[in-house]
Amino acid sequence: MEKATHQQTKAHNRNLVLKTIFEHEAISRAEIARKTQLTRATVSELVNELLTEGIVEEVGTGASIGGKSPILLSLVPDSRFLIGVNLGQDNFIASVVNLRGEIKETIESPALRHNPDETLALVIDMLESLLQKQWKPIVGIGIGAPGLIHTRQGMVLRAVNLDWENFPLAHLLEERFHMPVSILNDSQATAIGEFVYGKHVSSGNLIVVNIRHGIGAGILINGRLFQGDGSAAGEIGHVVVNPQGDVCRCGKRGCLETIASAGAVLRRTGVASLSEALERWENGNSGMQAVVAEAGNALGEALAHLVGALNIHHIVLTGEMTRFGEPWLESVRHAMQKAAFHPLVEDTRLEIGMLDYRACILGAAAFMVLEDYDLLFLQEH
Amino acid sequence: MEKATHQQTKAHNRNLVLKTIFEHEAISRAEIARKTQLTRATVSELVNELLTEGIVEEVGTGASIGGKSPILLSLVPDSRFLIGVNLGQDNFIASVVNLRGEIKETIESPALRHNPDETLALVIDMLESLLQKQWKPIVGIGIGAPGLIHTRQGMVLRAVNLDWENFPLAHLLEERFHMPVSILNDSQATAIGEFVYGKHVSSGNLIVVNIRHGIGAGILINGRLFQGDGSAAGEIGHVVVNPQGDVCRCGKRGCLETIASAGAVLRRTGVASLSEALERWENGNSGMQAVVAEAGNALGEALAHLVGALNIHHIVLTGEMTRFGEPWLESVRHAMQKAAFHPLVEDTRLEIGMLDYRACILGAAAFMVLEDYDLLFLQEH
Ligand SMILES: [Zn+2]
Ligand SMILES: [Zn+2]
Repeated sequence: MEKATHQQTKAHNRNLVLKTIFEHEAISRAEIARKTQLTRATVSELVNELLTEGIVEEVGTGASIGGKSPILLSLVPDSRFLIGVNLGQDNFIASVVNLRGEIKETIESPALRHNPDETLALVIDMLESLLQKQWKPIVGIGIGAPGLIHTRQGMVLRAVNLDWENFPLAHLLEERFHMPVSILNDSQATAIGEFVYGKHVSSGNLIVVNIRHGIGAGILINGRLFQGDGSAAGEIGHVVVNPQGDVCRCGKRGCLETIASAGAVLRRTGVASLSEALERWENGNSGMQAVVAEAGNALGEALAHLVGALNIHHIVLTGEMTRFGEPWLESVRHAMQKAAFHPLVEDTRLEIGMLDYRACILGAAAFMVLEDYDLLFLQEH
Repeated sequence: MEKATHQQTKAHNRNLVLKTIFEHEAISRAEIARKTQLTRATVSELVNELLTEGIVEEVGTGASIGGKSPILLSLVPDSRFLIGVNLGQDNFIASVVNLRGEIKETIESPALRHNPDETLALVIDMLESLLQKQWKPIVGIGIGAPGLIHTRQGMVLRAVNLDWENFPLAHLLEERFHMPVSILNDSQATAIGEFVYGKHVSSGNLIVVNIRHGIGAGILINGRLFQGDGSAAGEIGHVVVNPQGDVCRCGKRGCLETIASAGAVLRRTGVASLSEALERWENGNSGMQAVVAEAGNALGEALAHLVGALNIHHIVLTGEMTRFGEPWLESVRHAMQKAAFHPLVEDTRLEIGMLDYRACILGAAAFMVLEDYDLLFLQEH
């Protein structure tokens, strides 16, 4: 019992130290001790393990603050790899990613929708092909999928485009590949990706709204994804914003998705693809421009609710709808500012994400590490 | 430097131990070690300090799990007191509260609105009179006030009913009374009160919406108040829900407050007091019933946005509007269920708070302790 406690304390401290090294380009042992509030002796011992494991290396010396110059430590980016997967509406994309979020290799396949088993077989095929490449060791697989996901249970509760219901995806893949697999909502994964790799200035809090065929959001609070009690925090696409509106795929009328999503723009204008919609819009087609502006307005009004509830100063928009660029963003911003409480919204920055489709892949992979750095250890310590 | 780190570690650990004791009626040293993941030796040392300080006492022995029965520790409720203050729309209320949230003494005064200095003088008078009573030692003052508050800066940014703007209330009171003073939004304070003392079953996440003259909310995430980047998280009263609606005191049209607040019900029915409104409502006045139902519907629709964004399974409603009881609650619930995504809202419990006006006072006091248990120490350790 006493022993277990010590083991847990050690794992906890090791996570802290590794997190601190992750968050810095280069950092000394003394600075790690200061930031983690661990003793120098504890930090040294844990750093030695990380050096032995090859996850961390010494990269030179930093500025001295009296006394000898401290040795700086840095992550070895290619010492471990992860696979990030985006099971998108139209395409499945899977990438090998290193510890600094650099994408090493990507494969892609049109999404299948014949039946749940075929979909699973496709995902397995894609993973197998990536696992056979030269990137070694791969220590985990992180998946972002649209729909209702229960991360802790590793379950896809409901994902219409994948034809999966109460589907134990993480478990099935773990059995197959003998490594940790995590699954989360694709908008939540996208939010983590933008937060960690998007170079946004952030307080540790960030809202990312992903506007693609559907609409979802991911919310980071104090540097961690907030999933709520049912894993589905950010599921804002099916809030009714116009009870007289169009029928939604969820069965209700006037959900945010029926007005503000890329799917809604296509449906409402009778256009087959987003590229075609963009072309019409760029050519000044007034019907298209009105529908896109209306989509922006509806989104902005919904964002006003988030501004009031969370008072988070930074909102990032991602997904296909962002291809409508600055004019669309302006309609979102204008509607948000009109509908939100002025003292709160005047400090709220709204911008388009930096990572496009990669945000989901990088976020799904990063989530695994952020939740448990122990994943990176190959040997028992 | 090394020393400072050790001091910080110790303060951190002491906070952890005290938090654990606070959260249990009685608990053994071994159990504290298990829950905090600290060593038995560290826990024993810290518990000895708490015993010396008189904050904790030994209260008997617990069940043995093999070996001798463990001694149980418990908080000494009256070993320290705090003052909690609610600077309400119509009334100022201040209470002496013990460590278990028992109210020992309360004074009340009609809210003054002549000028900022008189308001301050009234608050000081009330505090002085409470500090002269027999409850000793009083270790801090926690204040809940309507409006925009910046907790870290101790500033009332804007509080229309108090006539204060950018008013350094916490600082002024700390200078006067030589003890820590904290200030937060009254709905945030109410949320903490309901969370800590409301006997709600909770995951650690809770939304409390306070519907009084105005509307505000407080959000607890993982057991802590979430204030957002600008301290104003939960400020949902001025989100526009009907652009063609009535003019709001904030200058916009159709804010949630203009339909769903107690103030709105009085204004829209031309009734002078809530008691009168309640009487008409109970007597089956159809105009009153329609306005109250409309108020409930508007609130429910706004809650649907919170359900989607946060997926928190438990929402508590507080404030004067809750006096309309079950029929009003039913209209809120019905509208929320209609407007929210079904898989999320079906697990969301909506209920009326348990503590009425006391929630704000208890929450304002508890906030101080929860943020820094060191407040309770009279001597340096
Ligand atoms: Zn829908
Ligand atoms: Zn307003």
